[in-house]
Amino acid sequence: MENMIATMANPTDIFAGIPADLPQELVQTLLAAPGLRIERIVSHGHASPKDFWYDQEMHEWVLLIQGAARLQFLDGRSMTMTPGSFVNIPAHTQHRVEWTDAAQATIWLAIHYQDAPPV
Amino acid sequence: MENMIATMANPTDIFAGIPADLPQELVQTLLAAPGLRIERIVSHGHASPKDFWYDQEMHEWVLLIQGAARLQFLDGRSMTMTPGSFVNIPAHTQHRVEWTDAAQATIWLAIHYQDAPPV
Repeated sequence: MENMIATMANPTDIFAGIPADLPQELVQTLLAAPGLRIERIVSHGHASPKDFWYDQEMHEWVLLIQGAARLQFLDGRSMTMTPGSFVNIPAHTQHRVEWTDAAQATIWLAIHYQDAPPV
Repeated sequence: MENMIATMANPTDIFAGIPADLPQELVQTLLAAPGLRIERIVSHGHASPKDFWYDQEMHEWVLLIQGAARLQFLDGRSMTMTPGSFVNIPAHTQHRVEWTDAAQATIWLAIHYQDAPPV
């Protein structure tokens, strides 16, 4: 019978540990490996400062898990994100968070990656 | 007024295009880069064959988006996954999908990565 008794283990929960009060965006690294960083980002009505544009060294693939947001790109595109929306933002594609829902926490999964990670 | 007219663009939707009938698991690559592969996997009551164990060359970070599943590890651990559950499975950590919900589609986000991707 011994091998029928499995040790139960708990996975981590992406919805866990979200503070009710969020004076600024919460960015947490879930996994870091060479050339790769997986983050949980929690926004709550936050947006990028006016005229601020992200211009990142790494590519970013981002999935919206909960909430709602709008991304704006320097080339004029604008993109509404709802749960399940994902988009790839190549390095140096200037963009900003134009808006996130003020009524709930918006949870993003962000995967930052490089073409040629250090070996 | 010209710069007030933004081109709207649609992100991709991780819930889109899920067939009602799923004779076998659906595995789709959402992004491929050196040393990195992001997949959507859709299960619907599927499980790994009995006595089959995944033994993968790449690490895998997996997030359950919708549905429910149970992972089993060769070391005896067992792990129930619900929406928001995530776990990192290092390369060559033998594991199998013991069970997925038969009543609904289970959607996984799987991030396969290497420590030292090819340059």
